[in-house]
Amino acid sequence: MDGKEFLHQMKMRAHCSNPNSFQRAMKPVLVTAQCFALMPVCGITNHNAASLRFKWLSLRVFYSVVIIIGLIAMSIFTTIDLFDGEISFRRTRGAVFCSSATLSCVMFLHLATKWKSLMLEWESVELRQQRYGYPKNLLWKINGTALFIISMATAETILANFNSVMWGATCQRTGQGNLLYCYAMSSYRHIFRFISYSSVVAIIAICINFVATFSWSFIDLFIILISTALTERFRLFNNHLKSINGKVIKEESWERLREEYNSLSCLTRSVNTCISNILLVSFGSNLYFICTQLLNSLIPMESTIEKVYFYLSFGYLLLRAGMVSLYAANVNEESHVPRAILFSVPSESYCTEVLRFERQVTTDEVALSASNFFSITRSMILTLVGTIVTYEVVLVQFNNVSGGSCITVANVTASS
Amino acid sequence: MDGKEFLHQMKMRAHCSNPNSFQRAMKPVLVTAQCFALMPVCGITNHNAASLRFKWLSLRVFYSVVIIIGLIAMSIFTTIDLFDGEISFRRTRGAVFCSSATLSCVMFLHLATKWKSLMLEWESVELRQQRYGYPKNLLWKINGTALFIISMATAETILANFNSVMWGATCQRTGQGNLLYCYAMSSYRHIFRFISYSSVVAIIAICINFVATFSWSFIDLFIILISTALTERFRLFNNHLKSINGKVIKEESWERLREEYNSLSCLTRSVNTCISNILLVSFGSNLYFICTQLLNSLIPMESTIEKVYFYLSFGYLLLRAGMVSLYAANVNEESHVPRAILFSVPSESYCTEVLRFERQVTTDEVALSASNFFSITRSMILTLVGTIVTYEVVLVQFNNVSGGSCITVANVTASS
Amino acid sequence: MDGKEFLHQMKMRAHCSNPNSFQRAMKPVLVTAQCFALMPVCGITNHNAASLRFKWLSLRVFYSVVIIIGLIAMSIFTTIDLFDGEISFRRTRGAVFCSSATLSCVMFLHLATKWKSLMLEWESVELRQQRYGYPKNLLWKINGTALFIISMATAETILANFNSVMWGATCQRTGQGNLLYCYAMSSYRHIFRFISYSSVVAIIAICINFVATFSWSFIDLFIILISTALTERFRLFNNHLKSINGKVIKEESWERLREEYNSLSCLTRSVNTCISNILLVSFGSNLYFICTQLLNSLIPMESTIEKVYFYLSFGYLLLRAGMVSLYAANVNEESHVPRAILFSVPSESYCTEVLRFERQVTTDEVALSASNFFSITRSMILTLVGTIVTYEVVLVQFNNVSGGSCITVANVTASS
Amino acid sequence: MDGKEFLHQMKMRAHCSNPNSFQRAMKPVLVTAQCFALMPVCGITNHNAASLRFKWLSLRVFYSVVIIIGLIAMSIFTTIDLFDGEISFRRTRGAVFCSSATLSCVMFLHLATKWKSLMLEWESVELRQQRYGYPKNLLWKINGTALFIISMATAETILANFNSVMWGATCQRTGQGNLLYCYAMSSYRHIFRFISYSSVVAIIAICINFVATFSWSFIDLFIILISTALTERFRLFNNHLKSINGKVIKEESWERLREEYNSLSCLTRSVNTCISNILLVSFGSNLYFICTQLLNSLIPMESTIEKVYFYLSFGYLLLRAGMVSLYAANVNEESHVPRAILFSVPSESYCTEVLRFERQVTTDEVALSASNFFSITRSMILTLVGTIVTYEVVLVQFNNVSGGSCITVANVTASS
Repeated sequence: MDGKEFLHQMKMRAHCSNPNSFQRAMKPVLVTAQCFALMPVCGITNHNAASLRFKWLSLRVFYSVVIIIGLIAMSIFTTIDLFDGEISFRRTRGAVFCSSATLSCVMFLHLATKWKSLMLEWESVELRQQRYGYPKNLLWKINGTALFIISMATAETILANFNSVMWGATCQRTGQGNLLYCYAMSSYRHIFRFISYSSVVAIIAICINFVATFSWSFIDLFIILISTALTERFRLFNNHLKSINGKVIKEESWERLREEYNSLSCLTRSVNTCISNILLVSFGSNLYFICTQLLNSLIPMESTIEKVYFYLSFGYLLLRAGMVSLYAANVNEESHVPRAILFSVPSESYCTEVLRFERQVTTDEVALSASNFFSITRSMILTLVGTIVTYEVVLVQFNNVSGGSCITVANVTASS
Repeated sequence: MDGKEFLHQMKMRAHCSNPNSFQRAMKPVLVTAQCFALMPVCGITNHNAASLRFKWLSLRVFYSVVIIIGLIAMSIFTTIDLFDGEISFRRTRGAVFCSSATLSCVMFLHLATKWKSLMLEWESVELRQQRYGYPKNLLWKINGTALFIISMATAETILANFNSVMWGATCQRTGQGNLLYCYAMSSYRHIFRFISYSSVVAIIAICINFVATFSWSFIDLFIILISTALTERFRLFNNHLKSINGKVIKEESWERLREEYNSLSCLTRSVNTCISNILLVSFGSNLYFICTQLLNSLIPMESTIEKVYFYLSFGYLLLRAGMVSLYAANVNEESHVPRAILFSVPSESYCTEVLRFERQVTTDEVALSASNFFSITRSMILTLVGTIVTYEVVLVQFNNVSGGSCITVANVTASS
Repeated sequence: MDGKEFLHQMKMRAHCSNPNSFQRAMKPVLVTAQCFALMPVCGITNHNAASLRFKWLSLRVFYSVVIIIGLIAMSIFTTIDLFDGEISFRRTRGAVFCSSATLSCVMFLHLATKWKSLMLEWESVELRQQRYGYPKNLLWKINGTALFIISMATAETILANFNSVMWGATCQRTGQGNLLYCYAMSSYRHIFRFISYSSVVAIIAICINFVATFSWSFIDLFIILISTALTERFRLFNNHLKSINGKVIKEESWERLREEYNSLSCLTRSVNTCISNILLVSFGSNLYFICTQLLNSLIPMESTIEKVYFYLSFGYLLLRAGMVSLYAANVNEESHVPRAILFSVPSESYCTEVLRFERQVTTDEVALSASNFFSITRSMILTLVGTIVTYEVVLVQFNNVSGGSCITVANVTASS
Repeated sequence: MDGKEFLHQMKMRAHCSNPNSFQRAMKPVLVTAQCFALMPVCGITNHNAASLRFKWLSLRVFYSVVIIIGLIAMSIFTTIDLFDGEISFRRTRGAVFCSSATLSCVMFLHLATKWKSLMLEWESVELRQQRYGYPKNLLWKINGTALFIISMATAETILANFNSVMWGATCQRTGQGNLLYCYAMSSYRHIFRFISYSSVVAIIAICINFVATFSWSFIDLFIILISTALTERFRLFNNHLKSINGKVIKEESWERLREEYNSLSCLTRSVNTCISNILLVSFGSNLYFICTQLLNSLIPMESTIEKVYFYLSFGYLLLRAGMVSLYAANVNEESHVPRAILFSVPSESYCTEVLRFERQVTTDEVALSASNFFSITRSMILTLVGTIVTYEVVLVQFNNVSGGSCITVANVTASS
């Protein structure tokens, strides 16, 4: 007993000191997220999952709740604004943006309540499979990706607000009000239809909008990082499996391998239970924004700044959506790898454990899924791309019909 | 022998006294249905399935048949009315509504003939799995859902007839006839093209239309309730399974568990055989009505009452269709739960029974299906939603082309 | 040895004298087909497969080849005619009709060469499973269905030619030529652009066209009949299986049952190898003709005869396409039936044979397929229906745009 | 040991002297490819895989790299040219053509680095299965197909350049410059917008364009050839399997058969790892070019030469795309063949090896795939064809709307 306990403590010490454990690798990202009122869980700077805590009566949760209330208010304002005029696909952007940001925040609050138990399971998998070590450079991979995406998001935000600020500056010069007033009026006019203007409200609105913009990117980033970490764990396991490909090994070893694979599969299922609604929001909003951007691309743009901003922002959106899809699908890809190795097990080494392992690998679908509505696999990505391309083709063709030929008609009739 | 008989009687007594047995839970709903000539089976107020009876020569069946004949007549009148003028998608609503109501009534009559044997199978499953108890609050879940949907249906019907009654009142004041005449003439004009007007016919038409409206909602409600009850039974079983996850249990226990799962799977298959054509009608009509409502949403509405009614009625339709899909898909979702547990069975406990159980869970699709044309699963719902969205996109785009740009052309030419 | 030989002869005698063996049931249909130059195989009036013969140097084959040459000529004439003017979807009808008839005839000639071996396999299955007897009333089912479809085809052909003959009669009265000349000129004008008119050519053209019309219906009929016979064999087997559901039976019995199922599965595969290209042509041409008919339905029709003919002919087409799909899918449906029974085999009776049987039923897809491009199952039918409905929706919407709104534009401009 | 070594040498000698080994069969094709800077690997003229070598510092690689740099330059020029004017689907052709050619060349360079290990695996499979012999006439099949496609490609290229050369000749006669100048100016105007004209640049551009055209065809040809060779190996194995169908054979024989199938399956996986990105480019570019050609087919063509060229070139494109799809799908088709035979294994001969073999055949998907986004199977081809047909239907309908009806409107207004 004492020996076992000692062993566990040794393992735990090694775990806590390894910079590539999942919890340590995620630390900087989660700290950043907490600055933006996402994931209000305490103890994320510690190195073991046991010290994580979620308390409803804490400052972080309070901060989150305040922001969520603000986002709900914003969503209501934009929705009323939408229904007030003529409803069109283009005009829904604001309302969808606010609503999806609100949903994201609520979901991260919900995830925070389950974060400790998820991390405990993850930790136990890492401890049990410590013989494979930790994914090399996971710390750098995760934080590098996070830095890259957050930088791009920042650049995009600055560009997006450039015009408004410019306009605000012009307006200030013409003496209509101070910079804040002008900027707020150009960007949040729908709010001040219901609330009379004050500097405080304007600043709050700007803050909330800032959080919404961050959460819009962070939702995708979070999925990418979780998927990366999961994929890396599968890869560690698969590399070990590849190293024994074709060799005769004992039934006990197969049992252990099968149980390790099963624990990875269970971990994926737990992760999926926690983040599948986040995935649904992420895929839904990405699909929506890609479609509206495609629709916008048909409007002729005049200024070069507008053009550059449009292509950069669209490129960033496509990149993010592509990365989310591919990284999330990689979990599924990696989970298929043992299949080939199990079919090649030599007959001398074949046993019930291999049969069970093989049955699990071939019949169990290990993949992240969007609330079970669809599993995120490579073939699903193809369907998504196909849907977008079809939409674009219909769009362009319709545009030609309405814009092109009928204008010709107009010309003909005008000239008559 | 005596002991076994005694045990069975004990079980049966416990069964009959439990308010959450399926038959007792469904009692209030089925009594309501019988008021509207659906499910004409005797003995539904009893607590055991053995006392159910279906007789062709009974008042309830006679009532049903009369209503069905009325509905057939209505369907014929509306169909002739449809073919008389120009056929368009919008004008098919009446004929489709009457036909689907007729189909529903016929199918419920058919289901009534098979209800007893279905209930006997359900009862035997409940008796055999009495060690898991009965689903908690099934009675309240079923009747709460029923009350909720029937209230909404009533509200929608009142709103729908508000205009006609208003118009009738105006018409009565102007002395064109009494209220009944005016109302009947505005709503059932297509009937009185073939039959000369009389108060009796008008009242009959109103009654039949009332039954049709009820059956239109009841068909969805019925599927929701059956699915809820099935899902709850699977959940009871799964909860037991989860409680033994990872434990070493004997082969006999596994045999019993497998047989219990198999009996649930067989029950689902029996239920499906009985209601799969009802499912087909339900999904088909919901899809049809959602599409026509989307088409109608493009017509500009003037009065606010019309607008409010339209959005409420459309919302109700979407809610109902969504509930049917999600509840029916839940059966399939719950049937997958044992999969993960079986993959985690420890090697000491692994035996042929586990293998068979696992094989059944992974290869047998336990799901409600619409006459085997499609199984109702979560991914199928996604396909449905995708179809509706695609239809809407094409619709809106076409509307823009025909309504938008060409009107522009007209303007241009008019101004020339 | 002698005993075994004697047994076989006894079985064979019973087989030959049973009117519901496949070969006897198909006799009348195949004789009819041979009148129209299809399936030129000798010995189809005999009752055992051994007496079937295919000889390249026989009158029947000669007849077939002559007709095929005629059809090829017709196809070439219509194709040249098509490419001569403006190519449009509507104008391809003639060429597609002739080409698909030609293809059918060639495929039936090809099938004739393989018919004997297919019938021998079928006969051996019937002999080995003689303990289940023969499908009841197969003779009547097959010939009733055949009679029904051929009658409808005849009625449709008469209606289709009514107009031409009427026109011919009018033309004869005006003295432009005799009835034959007028009729041929109205229906086969494209031929007489290349060949100078002569009565002989006209009569040959009429005959060939008649064969083409027959083969167009016969291709579907043939698939329906083959599918019916296959389904009935599966049903016989399934009924036996149902009768032993839940009983404890010996391993040898399971072995025999599995082998019998496997022989049915192999028979389906053999049938499929022989007729899968026929299926491809049938599904392709039905889909094509349904789409063109839908396109035609948008043209306003004036005379009532034309309207009645259009709806009857379209209804007949839909009925035939629906029957082919449903009957062919039934093979797949019936092949799934053993699944539930095998999952319910009691543990005492479970053995390797049951495992193998179950594995085959769950993993092997027993279905007719169109050259492996798609298996004909119920869910495939849904996809087909969905495709047709989508096409119709796009068609009607486009028609509204081009026909509706733009005509409005024309009116506006005309009135200016 | 000595005996084993001797046996291996005997086998190797037989292997090298057999003209139908994969490496010998591919020799002429790969030599041709190297003339066009594709697959720069040394030792392809030898008969054993061990003598293959890839060196970065070799003339062939240098040649490849030079061409790739040229192609990248071409791609950049055409892309800038595209973005300069109005972006339309039609105008993207040039840029897509150059980019896909560049990608092909880079991928073949990458493949060259992995070619040796792939060939070694293939050789070892051929050696281990030498008892089945070598595919008959593989040499002729591969080189016949290659010759056929290269001839068609050459014919198409000549026709494509006919117009430009004609125009060049006219231009030369009018004295605007020499033939080269005129030709280059008509075909590569976009290059000389950035680089001043010189004969050397013109010749380089022509050469690079020539390589691009070749690689565009070669990418498809290469997939066809690899698929043919793989299919033939599966066929050899399947033929052996068919010859023992229903016979009782020993467990060791089944073990050997299973291992042989597994080695074929592993070989397919290795091939797929190497060429799956090539497949993605091939399918993507074929789909793209078919769609643009369909779009072009709607433009009325005047000169007959243009018409003939258009239909020939489109026919060639369809033929190539069809061949790639069907040949690649054949690998999957052949890999399914053992299924039926394994289900028919007599009970006496049934053993764990048969179970494992059967499990592998039924659960492992052996198919070429485009980077795992989609497996190339027959049903996938149907989806592709369906997509193209849908696109064409939408296109034609839109064309009718914009071209047809609206032109009518124009006429109406013009005549008013």
